[in-house]
Formats: sequence, C-alpha cells, structure tokens
Amino acid sequence: MRATFRPSTDVGAYRFCHRVRARFADTDAMGVVNHAAYLPYLEEARVEYLRAAGHPYTAMRAEGLELPVVELTVRYLRPVVFDEVVEVNLVPASVGAATLEIGYLLTVAGEARLTAVTLHAVTAVDGRPRRCPVWLLDLARG
Amino acid sequence: MRATFRPSTDVGAYRFCHRVRARFADTDAMGVVNHAAYLPYLEEARVEYLRAAGHPYTAMRAEGLELPVVELTVRYLRPVVFDEVVEVNLVPASVGAATLEIGYLLTVAGEARLTAVTLHAVTAVDGRPRRCPVWLLDLARG
Amino acid sequence: MRATFRPSTDVGAYRFCHRVRARFADTDAMGVVNHAAYLPYLEEARVEYLRAAGHPYTAMRAEGLELPVVELTVRYLRPVVFDEVVEVNLVPASVGAATLEIGYLLTVAGEARLTAVTLHAVTAVDGRPRRCPVWLLDLARG
Amino acid sequence: MRATFRPSTDVGAYRFCHRVRARFADTDAMGVVNHAAYLPYLEEARVEYLRAAGHPYTAMRAEGLELPVVELTVRYLRPVVFDEVVEVNLVPASVGAATLEIGYLLTVAGEARLTAVTLHAVTAVDGRPRRCPVWLLDLARG
Repeated sequence: MRATFRPSTDVGAYRFCHRVRARFADTDAMGVVNHAAYLPYLEEARVEYLRAAGHPYTAMRAEGLELPVVELTVRYLRPVVFDEVVEVNLVPASVGAATLEIGYLLTVAGEARLTAVTLHAVTAVDGRPRRCPVWLLDLARG
Repeated sequence: MRATFRPSTDVGAYRFCHRVRARFADTDAMGVVNHAAYLPYLEEARVEYLRAAGHPYTAMRAEGLELPVVELTVRYLRPVVFDEVVEVNLVPASVGAATLEIGYLLTVAGEARLTAVTLHAVTAVDGRPRRCPVWLLDLARG
Repeated sequence: MRATFRPSTDVGAYRFCHRVRARFADTDAMGVVNHAAYLPYLEEARVEYLRAAGHPYTAMRAEGLELPVVELTVRYLRPVVFDEVVEVNLVPASVGAATLEIGYLLTVAGEARLTAVTLHAVTAVDGRPRRCPVWLLDLARG
Repeated sequence: MRATFRPSTDVGAYRFCHRVRARFADTDAMGVVNHAAYLPYLEEARVEYLRAAGHPYTAMRAEGLELPVVELTVRYLRPVVFDEVVEVNLVPASVGAATLEIGYLLTVAGEARLTAVTLHAVTAVDGRPRRCPVWLLDLARG
C-alpha cells in the first residue's frame, strides 16, 4: 500500500478544522517550529476529527482497533513561529479494505504553511490487519 | 521541487551508518517508538554524516548556510521498541542547484524497519535560497 | 537563588487555569503521559497566563526580556492518561529583584495529578540578569 | 516520600558517566537546549547505568518491576547548545523500602551545566508499591 492523495492548498478541499497554538517547546534554534513538532499537530487533529465524528480514539482502542501510521509525507511550505495559531485542516481522502488515508493543510490566518498525508493501517491491538469497520468506510465516503 | 528518490531496503545502497538507541521517552502507549520520534534519528544521522564528511553542521551554520527540511516521506515497515539499537543508514541521493535529497534506511540487526527521504533547501540564515556549495555537490556525486 | 514555594493541592490556592488535552505523542510505553511531557504543559500555561495578564510572551521577547527556567521541581501524584483534559492551575508565587517563582497544580476533573514549581531568572536576550519590570512585580503581588 | 539529596557540582561525587550529544531537535528558539529536553538525557543515563550494573531495564520490566519517577528537581546552571557532548554523571543517592533516589550532574568538558535529582517508586507493572529487590539495595550501598 502507498499513499496516493495529493493534498490541496485550498482550504475548501478539507472537511474538518482543529486549531493548535505553537508552543515554545515546539521551536528549535532556527527560531521556528521544528519539522518534527508538526506531527503531533496532525495526530491531535485526527483525534479531534474522530471524536467529532462520534468515534473517539479511546473508544476505538477499547474496541481493539488501532490506526498506526504506515506512511507519511509532509511538504513544508513556510515555517510556523512560536505562538501562532495553526488551523489544521483535515480530510479523510480514501479508505481501502484495511487502510485509511488522510490529507492535511496547515494554515495560519488562511496562509498555507504545510501539507501532509498520512496513510494508516487498520489493525487489531496485536498489529494484525483488520477489516475496516463500516463507520470508517462511511467517514471517507463523507 | 519535489523528492523523487525511492529508498531501497538493501543496506548496500547506503553510504553511511549511524547508531541510535531507542529511548523510553521515544515510545508511546502502543508500546513502540512513536512515529514522530524517528525524525530526530534522521536529523542526528545527517549531523553525524556531515561531521564525518568534514563539514560539521555548526561550522556550516557559522558560515551562514542552513539546510531546512522542505519535504519528508517516511514509510514505517515494522516498529522499533524501547532499547533497540537502530542503524540509521544514509545516502545523499541527489543534489540540485539549491536542494539536497537524502535517503535513509533504518534497520535493527539488519532487519528493515523504516525508509525515509528528506529534501532540503540550501538557504542563507534568512531563509533565502543559496547556491549549493561545491563541497555539497561533491558529496552527492560521492 | 532557590525556589521555596510549596505548591498546594487545593485548587483554591491558584489564580489562573489553562486546559490542555493529553496527546497520544505525550504518552510512553508505561501507557501514561511520560514524565517529561508535562513540562510543555507548564510552559503553555505560563504563556497563556502572561497573555491573559496583558503581557504576551512574544511582546515581552520583542522588548528584550526573557524568563528562562533556572530551577524546576515536579511531584508526580497520579499519572495522566491519553485524551484526559488537564487543568493546569497556576499562581505567581513570589517575585524577587531578578527572579519569578510560579506554582502549579495539575488536576483532572478536580483530582490532583501533579504539582510543580518553576523558578525563572529575569534576563535580557543575551542572558544577563535584568531588573524585574514593575508589571511583573505587580502580577506576583496580585 | 520526598527527595532529600543535594547533588554536588563535583564530578568526583558521581559513580557513572554516560555521554549524550545535544540534538538540534532538543534546542528551542532561545538557541539553546529546551529545559524539558534534558529529562530524556537523565532517563537515558539511568538506563545505561542499570545495564552496566547488570540489570538492564528491559529485563527489569520483564520481571514486572517499574521505577516510575515520582519527584524531580532540576537546577539549570548554564545552558547546553546544539552539538555539545554532555557528560551525564550519575550516582544512586539513597534507597528506601520502596524508593530509589538518583543524583545527576551534567557537564560539558568538565563545566557544570545542570544538576538534578529523581526520586523513583519501586512498583509492580500495575503501579502498586513493591519491595525494593536486593540487587537494587546493593547498588545504592555501592
């Protein structure tokens, strides 16, 4: 499996938005947010998206379902600086038999800063592939 | 610009190896290294590679050269667990007028765990593009 | 200089509250938030407190004032788990000629999870001690 | 329980030394290592100390023993900058019926940068207190 989604820089292409304020601990000595520190922003947005969709991550894990990241692509367009409020725009891009692909656009005051795609396996807690539950298929069909 | 390199899972395709031991702080509640925690492993390996090549990152920055990550792709093949010693294999994959592409293969006892590609802009400290210095061109030509 | 404040586990002893939701990336393989991951919660609460008090951290830094942490004490009472909403209660505990001491109590649904004290130097951007500005003295006098 | 050890700035007072090189990802926009990023250095040194003492952390956990941090005090003397090699000096300071206290001194080229104390509970995997095993008592008696 391999991610194929090309995330747009047009906010209109996304279905959910979660705001995160850049922490001082997220910055590095270049004076901007470290490239690794954006990944938890994506994760936090996924968690909030699933909650808003009625399927909180904790409930999902309690039911024995995990969505580990198996592929990740990030394009850094412009850096985020400390204390900026980042809009993490998200869209479930595709769903397969046992995979879920999510697209992201990070903006600050509407300006594109970063796009990303995460590809997730749908697995049991022991890491074995699991059939994608119907509600997850429905999410992506939106 | 866009990364085009497809990293191999064959260790022989890489030119440098740096070892990192997975910290407890790198793990998450799934019991394995969090997907974001691998990025500093790649960064640490780049720093050691440049040092070994006679161009320490600190000297580079003192000369006003930065290599910010502008694109990143990671494929997670198998998770790393706490205390495993990770071999971060690295190859300078291509170098352009103002870009540098690096490929990575992370192995544990020879077993592939993760591949990655980082694309770097060659910039001045103010973030403006800079011509790639000759020594950097020479590195990639290897 | 040395912190002397003993933080209370009574929420009533605090003057400001900022909420943070525990991220998955904050957890470790023990299944709870890693002991190091709480420090950015404290930092985020300080930043929000100063903003609410009319002295945003970015403005402070623009005026050449820094508040580096010079001492830190944390007592871990009960762990926080993924997705819990943490109330970071904060009180400016004391202010000296060139120091600021802040106390914290982290609660989840009113239950104490962690107390902490940070002692900050009041410095210029070059790290040299600076006299505590009047507004900062006033804050602590509350 | 409460930590009582006062860590010395004299390297001679410590029994074990582990080296860590400061990563770029550890720094923040003040240009130095973020105050939270030192905690994994302490953790890594504890892990290496236990390994050197013949009781690797993974074996300990496999036997159902955990050493969660219940109290932490850090004094930041001088910042560490990117790429500096930090000597994490460590001494098991005291051991009680169900607690372990460890002292740390971080130096760079012999210069003191930070002292710390961690107090650990000795627990079973379920978090319940456990009697300190003999080998751990012996370690602290040194």
